[in-house]
Amino acid sequence: MDTAYFNGKFLNKDEIKISPDDRGFLFADGVYEVVRWYGGFFYDLDSHLTRLIRSLRELRINWPNADSFPAISNNLIKLNKLENQPALVYLQVTRGVARRSHSFPSSEVTPTAYANTWGIKPDRHLKETGIKVMLKEDIRWKRCDIKSVSLLPNVLGNQAANENGYKECVFARDGFITEGSHSNIFFVTDGTLFTHPESNYVLSGITRKNILRIAHECGIKIREEAVHENMIRFIQEAFITNTSDEVVPVIELGGNTLGEGVPGPITRIVIDKFSNEIKALKG
Amino acid sequence: MDTAYFNGKFLNKDEIKISPDDRGFLFADGVYEVVRWYGGFFYDLDSHLTRLIRSLRELRINWPNADSFPAISNNLIKLNKLENQPALVYLQVTRGVARRSHSFPSSEVTPTAYANTWGIKPDRHLKETGIKVMLKEDIRWKRCDIKSVSLLPNVLGNQAANENGYKECVFARDGFITEGSHSNIFFVTDGTLFTHPESNYVLSGITRKNILRIAHECGIKIREEAVHENMIRFIQEAFITNTSDEVVPVIELGGNTLGEGVPGPITRIVIDKFSNEIKALKG
Repeated sequence: MDTAYFNGKFLNKDEIKISPDDRGFLFADGVYEVVRWYGGFFYDLDSHLTRLIRSLRELRINWPNADSFPAISNNLIKLNKLENQPALVYLQVTRGVARRSHSFPSSEVTPTAYANTWGIKPDRHLKETGIKVMLKEDIRWKRCDIKSVSLLPNVLGNQAANENGYKECVFARDGFITEGSHSNIFFVTDGTLFTHPESNYVLSGITRKNILRIAHECGIKIREEAVHENMIRFIQEAFITNTSDEVVPVIELGGNTLGEGVPGPITRIVIDKFSNEIKALKG
Repeated sequence: MDTAYFNGKFLNKDEIKISPDDRGFLFADGVYEVVRWYGGFFYDLDSHLTRLIRSLRELRINWPNADSFPAISNNLIKLNKLENQPALVYLQVTRGVARRSHSFPSSEVTPTAYANTWGIKPDRHLKETGIKVMLKEDIRWKRCDIKSVSLLPNVLGNQAANENGYKECVFARDGFITEGSHSNIFFVTDGTLFTHPESNYVLSGITRKNILRIAHECGIKIREEAVHENMIRFIQEAFITNTSDEVVPVIELGGNTLGEGVPGPITRIVIDKFSNEIKALKG
């Protein structure tokens, strides 16, 4: 039986039930985080905590236990006996339970906090072969910087990708490529690494940030600048990043083969360096 | 104890608990409807049912019991002894419970259906005095025609309005006024009634549709055309419409007094005709 966290307690997951008046259920009025456990440590949990606190602040959800996110995550790993294998921890905090009304409920309403964990089997094969990704119009709201559960357009994009044999759907707003349904995207042209700058149109991915650091350490030229879909033919390499899949090469985008249609040299460098960083942390 | 509907059963509301794996909770992957009971009948329940079926179809949620929405609504009114007073029925249908993954779960997953009801006390005073509404940038996604629970931007807009002493927040996209956080909006200039045309930027309100019919029956000239915020100074009257509040005059928009700052003559005609229609239905 899986053990999960709910409002201060660790319970059998089946015992945890959300009220139909929860604002997460009625209004998508909540935020979430996903952190990755590497069979011994969480990768950059500090940055996830910082982002969680920012998301909560942007929505003015006053969850007094935000600082306990690391402890909750560690406890879930232990309670579910996942210490020695890769796993993800998911945390969601909503504005809480209140009679349905668009505006915020009284300040006395306590946020709902839920977290669970599950073991994963990383697919190393994808890092070698790369993936094909779909390109679709970015129809999302204009606060994609908040990691909210208002994810319906991401769901629809990801589903369209899956049905068309793609592993991910990447969005373009007014022609400029923003990010994927659950990943950031990087491009390489003439040896320079491009990714959309931090803004209200993209999530500030933790892996995105660490890959930028790693690329900088490797002396790779970086431009945090949006790439227009008209420029796809000039892209020699691409990769997506997120917490659960780390770095995955992209060999085709919106029906266009990128470069030689295989993971490129800069992509390989970045994957290797990230992998080495994980190995070093494992000690 | 309130009685509510959950997946085919009528239960004490407190017994109804949503799974934390419900896609409504995790992804805002669901739709809803609100219908108004006038102490004897639902107003235009057929149109709400048609819109529910459309929302479900657009998201490809296969809820086999959509046709039972009228029966569920009537049962809830009876079970909660609301037959003789005004009330609202809220129905929400999500894609169901499945392990977290952006793409749709297997087709065998059954949608979650939840409905409840509560008595209301209509505020007739607002129809006489009118309300002031805030104007904010429309940051919502581009499928506002789907009545989904992906309502976080509506929540934030409505909350901003409330904090600034406004009753509603109306949005403008690229300068064009679309609709309110939970209402459609109409304008009168030189005797012509304007409202945003049906599109992916607005919800096709049931009251909106009926007010257009009533205005047409009254011989009022109608243009389903978006009004630009630069034109606010030429607006002589405005009103918002939705199922729960029917028609409410707007006397100030984004800090601009409209006309004489009191409900205008065309607004009054529309309110009277709608009110007469309700009286006629009451018999």
